[in-house]
Amino acid sequence: MKGKPVRESIVEMIQIVRPDDANPLGIAFGGAVVAWIDSAAAVAAMRHARMPVVTASIDSLSFLHPIQIGEFVVIKAAVHYVGTTSMEVGVSIESENPMTGERKKTTSGYLTFVALGSDGRPTAIPPVIPETAEEKMQYEEAKKHREYKLKLREELR
Amino acid sequence: MKGKPVRESIVEMIQIVRPDDANPLGIAFGGAVVAWIDSAAAVAAMRHARMPVVTASIDSLSFLHPIQIGEFVVIKAAVHYVGTTSMEVGVSIESENPMTGERKKTTSGYLTFVALGSDGRPTAIPPVIPETAEEKMQYEEAKKHREYKLKLREELR
Amino acid sequence: MKGKPVRESIVEMIQIVRPDDANPLGIAFGGAVVAWIDSAAAVAAMRHARMPVVTASIDSLSFLHPIQIGEFVVIKAAVHYVGTTSMEVGVSIESENPMTGERKKTTSGYLTFVALGSDGRPTAIPPVIPETAEEKMQYEEAKKHREYKLKLREELR
Amino acid sequence: MKGKPVRESIVEMIQIVRPDDANPLGIAFGGAVVAWIDSAAAVAAMRHARMPVVTASIDSLSFLHPIQIGEFVVIKAAVHYVGTTSMEVGVSIESENPMTGERKKTTSGYLTFVALGSDGRPTAIPPVIPETAEEKMQYEEAKKHREYKLKLREELR
Amino acid sequence: MKGKPVRESIVEMIQIVRPDDANPLGIAFGGAVVAWIDSAAAVAAMRHARMPVVTASIDSLSFLHPIQIGEFVVIKAAVHYVGTTSMEVGVSIESENPMTGERKKTTSGYLTFVALGSDGRPTAIPPVIPETAEEKMQYEEAKKHREYKLKLREELR
Amino acid sequence: MKGKPVRESIVEMIQIVRPDDANPLGIAFGGAVVAWIDSAAAVAAMRHARMPVVTASIDSLSFLHPIQIGEFVVIKAAVHYVGTTSMEVGVSIESENPMTGERKKTTSGYLTFVALGSDGRPTAIPPVIPETAEEKMQYEEAKKHREYKLKLREELR
Repeated sequence: MKGKPVRESIVEMIQIVRPDDANPLGIAFGGAVVAWIDSAAAVAAMRHARMPVVTASIDSLSFLHPIQIGEFVVIKAAVHYVGTTSMEVGVSIESENPMTGERKKTTSGYLTFVALGSDGRPTAIPPVIPETAEEKMQYEEAKKHREYKLKLREELR
Repeated sequence: MKGKPVRESIVEMIQIVRPDDANPLGIAFGGAVVAWIDSAAAVAAMRHARMPVVTASIDSLSFLHPIQIGEFVVIKAAVHYVGTTSMEVGVSIESENPMTGERKKTTSGYLTFVALGSDGRPTAIPPVIPETAEEKMQYEEAKKHREYKLKLREELR
Repeated sequence: MKGKPVRESIVEMIQIVRPDDANPLGIAFGGAVVAWIDSAAAVAAMRHARMPVVTASIDSLSFLHPIQIGEFVVIKAAVHYVGTTSMEVGVSIESENPMTGERKKTTSGYLTFVALGSDGRPTAIPPVIPETAEEKMQYEEAKKHREYKLKLREELR
Repeated sequence: MKGKPVRESIVEMIQIVRPDDANPLGIAFGGAVVAWIDSAAAVAAMRHARMPVVTASIDSLSFLHPIQIGEFVVIKAAVHYVGTTSMEVGVSIESENPMTGERKKTTSGYLTFVALGSDGRPTAIPPVIPETAEEKMQYEEAKKHREYKLKLREELR
Repeated sequence: MKGKPVRESIVEMIQIVRPDDANPLGIAFGGAVVAWIDSAAAVAAMRHARMPVVTASIDSLSFLHPIQIGEFVVIKAAVHYVGTTSMEVGVSIESENPMTGERKKTTSGYLTFVALGSDGRPTAIPPVIPETAEEKMQYEEAKKHREYKLKLREELR
Repeated sequence: MKGKPVRESIVEMIQIVRPDDANPLGIAFGGAVVAWIDSAAAVAAMRHARMPVVTASIDSLSFLHPIQIGEFVVIKAAVHYVGTTSMEVGVSIESENPMTGERKKTTSGYLTFVALGSDGRPTAIPPVIPETAEEKMQYEEAKKHREYKLKLREELR
């Protein structure tokens, strides 16, 4: 199976926080932000696999700053690492104040996606090819993160 | 500050998966499910703290089974452990097939919430009092999970 | 056809009132609340019949108190009585102030659902078995309500 | 307080049933239809009172025919009768098949609205003036319906 | 192919601007208003053609006044002119202040729709018959507008 | 007033077409696509002006190809030209087939935004500085387009 460069799966998505995405103090719900993250990450996973995908797991995510109604949420996602049948999609999220342009890092992490074959079951995914120095570092980090996660899952059994 | 029993924060929420919550194969987006989980967990956190809350972090969540359009998502949430200014809300999610009644465990985990005082800053939260044997076990688990998480965060710095 | 106990159809649903569910004074639209009630009642009806259902009628509903943005709407629903091809689902709705915990009864009533067979037409439904004293009382009330409703409908013709 | 003719409060609203408004068989949820009805009726009530309004009660509504995804829901609403502080808004709903133009009566009934003064409390509403023969008949019907409803409410206490 | 009078395609739709339709200043997004216009115009096009339709183009639209949350958006649409396989749907939009009843013209223009045959391709549409003096004038205007648009499109190539 | 380079206002937004965004044939509503375009263009306008903005006009938009449920809509927007109190935001929209990666141009055009000062009235906007050859060409085109539009508007009076 021929590999694909990371750049083919890069996604940028931007959302404006609306009143229904926020609590009565005007702060965006964590769940609303995760729904956007999952959406952007799914696009990255489909751009890499060119098959239907489902979210297998969402990494632990810490919200470093509250985001207000009217602010922009800027989401970047790309496939950082590929196992046999699963993809590690790295995501990084910033908020942007529309009046000042100030950007704050909101959170970052990984979502794991599985691609489904025509029988609806997990199927093999083309390898990912990191090209730039940054992509190579992200590849190693995502790989380490994944091994760590799998080891942890076994220990917790 | 007087403690509150776990039972005061217990929440049960049920959602029917609709077409917009699902991909073209009819499988619910992970992000849609997390948005519901965050919403139920926020209710549990507000029932305990009786103050506005914001999501500080969402635990790693694995989706064990795909959920289809038309299925029910049953979410249970309660405050399992309280630190000085943050609450560990335990959540467990099942899907229910409306035609057969079959229930499948979808995922479980923790969300951490912070309560905001009138100055909009994190504020002290009443302790939680586990009463039943199960609640006491959940308390110890949530405490251990939290210590582990904090230790991990420090290591990763 | 074997009967099923009431407890198998009990549903609890909770919703937070969001800005789009409310008028510019911040008071929830009656229609938004009815949409949630219908959704919870449909789950109760499907849990009893384990077949697809459609709303045949919604009882007269009085809204005793306005509900504000940010408040919780707690909906309880269960099948109280079953006729040949229709179910009377009893619903009771309370609002909960998230800051004080104060609960107020908002409304209660009945929704009638019909179950659809594989031919898309109304089909026979298993009887419901009230077990507790409260369920038996609810059964009699729902039966009386139904007879009254049918009689009224004939008179109005 | 000067009265206003019925024609000043007449509202026509049309909605296309979308997938999220319907169950997996493609039939519109009763609750979705009631949400649209409440919205149209609120416009009628505000056009009459020119004050903020809240739904006080929704009449018993029977759904005579299922409505499918893609069909149009045509809602007509107008203030038929006014009491001291409440308005009876008559609504009639038809579905329209977009491919054949066939129209079917779906349901009809009343919603009662209360107007809120600047103190947020129910306030006096201008009388309604029926002009046409049909409006006069609707006025008498709405009045009778209302008296009947109030009597019934007292009996049920 | 037998023609149809304009009156058969007339549509009136009303929407209340909700918080999620508006920016943090409370002014409705242009895009939200266009989504409603497109929806009403599609109903007009389907009422004329009684076939599935798709938007082929949206005319230049100027928003003459901001519309606030809580205001009504009143949309009128009808098929003004029909070419071989496309319809010119004229739309006119007003906002209405719910407290004063004041109406302001928001915008007007044309949307062009194509009807799709059972093969999913553009198909012939029945001619439209203007009956009143106003409809005849609108017919001529829409025809001129269309010719102008086609000529312009060619020039810009 | 100091100018700002075009690159500071560049926006990329991606959306997955969901069932509620599409007609029963599975083709995205033109109005849904315009709502996304307006949202992306508003972000570009706010990034340039760093003030609240409102849509003043939407250019004529032709939809060259139908977009299906599940496809991605990729929207690019940037401020191309600035007048005294208004901005011409150029937008270009492509659809992307998630399974093949095939991209098709859907439409392109301009939206004009006005920035609002603290008094809620249109206010002066910093000039835009095109830097690359492409940006300079876009600047000239947007300027010509704008002059043409203003001339046309006068003629039509």
